Amino acid sequence: MPLITLTTDFGIKDGTVGVMKGVIWGICPTVQISDLSHMIQAQNIREAAHIFARSVPYFPNDSIHIVVVDPGVGTKRRPMAAKLGDWFFVGPDNGIITILLERADQEGWQTEFVELNRAQYWLQNVSYVFHGRDIFSPVAAHLANGVSLRELGSSFNDPVRLELPKPEKANNGWRGEVIHIDHFGNVSTNIRVENLGDVMNEKENISVHLNGNEIKGLVNTFGERSVGEVIALMGSTGNLGIAVVNGNAAQILGAKVGDLVEVIHK
Amino acid sequence: MPLITLTTDFGIKDGTVGVMKGVIWGICPTVQISDLSHMIQAQNIREAAHIFARSVPYFPNDSIHIVVVDPGVGTKRRPMAAKLGDWFFVGPDNGIITILLERADQEGWQTEFVELNRAQYWLQNVSYVFHGRDIFSPVAAHLANGVSLRELGSSFNDPVRLELPKPEKANNGWRGEVIHIDHFGNVSTNIRVENLGDVMNEKENISVHLNGNEIKGLVNTFGERSVGEVIALMGSTGNLGIAVVNGNAAQILGAKVGDLVEVIHK
Amino acid sequence: MPLITLTTDFGIKDGTVGVMKGVIWGICPTVQISDLSHMIQAQNIREAAHIFARSVPYFPNDSIHIVVVDPGVGTKRRPMAAKLGDWFFVGPDNGIITILLERADQEGWQTEFVELNRAQYWLQNVSYVFHGRDIFSPVAAHLANGVSLRELGSSFNDPVRLELPKPEKANNGWRGEVIHIDHFGNVSTNIRVENLGDVMNEKENISVHLNGNEIKGLVNTFGERSVGEVIALMGSTGNLGIAVVNGNAAQILGAKVGDLVEVIHK
Repeated sequence: MPLITLTTDFGIKDGTVGVMKGVIWGICPTVQISDLSHMIQAQNIREAAHIFARSVPYFPNDSIHIVVVDPGVGTKRRPMAAKLGDWFFVGPDNGIITILLERADQEGWQTEFVELNRAQYWLQNVSYVFHGRDIFSPVAAHLANGVSLRELGSSFNDPVRLELPKPEKANNGWRGEVIHIDHFGNVSTNIRVENLGDVMNEKENISVHLNGNEIKGLVNTFGERSVGEVIALMGSTGNLGIAVVNGNAAQILGAKVGDLVEVIHK
Repeated sequence: MPLITLTTDFGIKDGTVGVMKGVIWGICPTVQISDLSHMIQAQNIREAAHIFARSVPYFPNDSIHIVVVDPGVGTKRRPMAAKLGDWFFVGPDNGIITILLERADQEGWQTEFVELNRAQYWLQNVSYVFHGRDIFSPVAAHLANGVSLRELGSSFNDPVRLELPKPEKANNGWRGEVIHIDHFGNVSTNIRVENLGDVMNEKENISVHLNGNEIKGLVNTFGERSVGEVIALMGSTGNLGIAVVNGNAAQILGAKVGDLVEVIHK
Repeated sequence: MPLITLTTDFGIKDGTVGVMKGVIWGICPTVQISDLSHMIQAQNIREAAHIFARSVPYFPNDSIHIVVVDPGVGTKRRPMAAKLGDWFFVGPDNGIITILLERADQEGWQTEFVELNRAQYWLQNVSYVFHGRDIFSPVAAHLANGVSLRELGSSFNDPVRLELPKPEKANNGWRGEVIHIDHFGNVSTNIRVENLGDVMNEKENISVHLNGNEIKGLVNTFGERSVGEVIALMGSTGNLGIAVVNGNAAQILGAKVGDLVEVIHK
């Protein structure tokens, strides 16, 4: 049973996401459709890239993922579709796939990119401002129907990649930054479990620093500390996180995306 | 595969929309269900009418659209179902269908209206306050199962119509008003591409006026101007819009639903 | 066609709920999935218990309901699955099922509880912090595939129960409290239609008291009074409610969860 997910910065009040589903089901009536998020900050391609990269690997093989955070809609930016390992992406060529593509490179996944330029797979009337409805939804639905990637457009090899800050090795640890604040106010950083490596075996010898706060040791989960305590822990997709037990860490620590985070190993 | 959409002012926190889906799937287990919006402003029938009219035409033929913005629930207002061209509506007879019905009149679509008065197609216990769950969801599910409109109730010919402000021709252009502010803060007006007609071929000779701001020329899309610039453009369903590139036009211009918008042609 | 619902305090912006759906469809591709609410107040098990108890009975028999409001994730709190009458629950053993379980006790429904301790029904890698994705979603999907409750874990008989305030009989009526404020600002209380009994036949002789306000009489629905009037009425699932016609009662009356509500019968 084919499966399509939708990620946008469209919000949930205007009916625009529902309309995309209507277009999809008009072409492929049996496809399952799941929302991933429609609350990406407006025009924030980097946030979309993070959520895309950490979510897609939990979906079945051959699932199709439409992401529309698209400030360049209707300009010369390429509309694209791609195969990234076991999954398909459909959306603007503006860097949304950067992080998953880095993983594909590292892990040797097969990748393939096409520029969407075959109008027979689009709605008949294409607006300048809503390619999510007019191009990306119908293309994804045709993919779900079994149309091959190659048939949907012309191959290319140079998808846009965002320049994303990487964590840096320091002489006694790592320096990274805040990359996401979640619904609970939990802070996620770009320092990953792979960066910390063996240090993860000495969790009590680590301290984490953010905005003048020092958090001693890493815990496994929230319930190991008392309500209100600031903790550091590995998030569920392997990124170092900072949280307050049953509280809002971002508010309490005044943290925002881009803030410096340091891990110091004694 | 049958398809039902849901539009309400119920919000997303109380589980009420999920309950409607439970009722529907209890009667028609295979139907696809899509949310359209549950963030219609409370009791704002006019907003529901706009979103309904512009969204439904993107859904497949025979899709069924439940809209529950229903301040008169449990009073003498008629519960109704309708065929409007290729689509079905189920909800209160309070004017939600006005705008799509005007289009049906203009384009000569077939229409049919029934008052829902056959309790065998409802839940066994009907509350006074939640007909979305007790009447509209089961009726829509029976429609999805192939029950005909006529079987669900008695025909009538005078559905309630809202009196909506129409754009007016002025001697050098058009006068209309703001009808919707979207998630991005983009402003949509009731002046349509059909109103502007040939003027659309001279986009540089148009100016748009809102709350003391003059916007010179129409552009096709956001990316044609710099971040922060105020622009006027035709929205994806043919209504004149006013936006700020990567910004919130409604906030910046202090715009709200009902504000006067003028298009002046030099 | 199997059916799973999802209720969490995860919000809708981070993609976490979508990921749960990806995991579910990876195991059971044909299951229908419905959101119930993802806006449960963070860590508010009591709110989840209310919404769960009043929503589940509207879903088809054998539907499976995942609820993840789980401040104890990764600690010794039991992960569980249960049969409660005609429906299945999957989630942490922290009291979420309390209210529906009380109803099961009263009405003699069959109940069965298992501790989830068979890792072959989970994702291969289980994080400390996201059992919704790693344990509860795969378990629910296996249930949807027809795996029996007993196969998923070891039986137990003492699920955690919340101590919830009960309405009390007073000499001329009832004393209860506010248990939920909905999207509209309507106030719901723990005083039920069964408590009021015969008094319901003399609606004009009842007065309802909240925060120093007296509301005379019970009405059936909103439209019986003028816009702006404060009314008392029975909600759609049988709980006494207080509302303002087309207004926000919680704001206008300063009501919050836990506030005392009295019903006085003349």
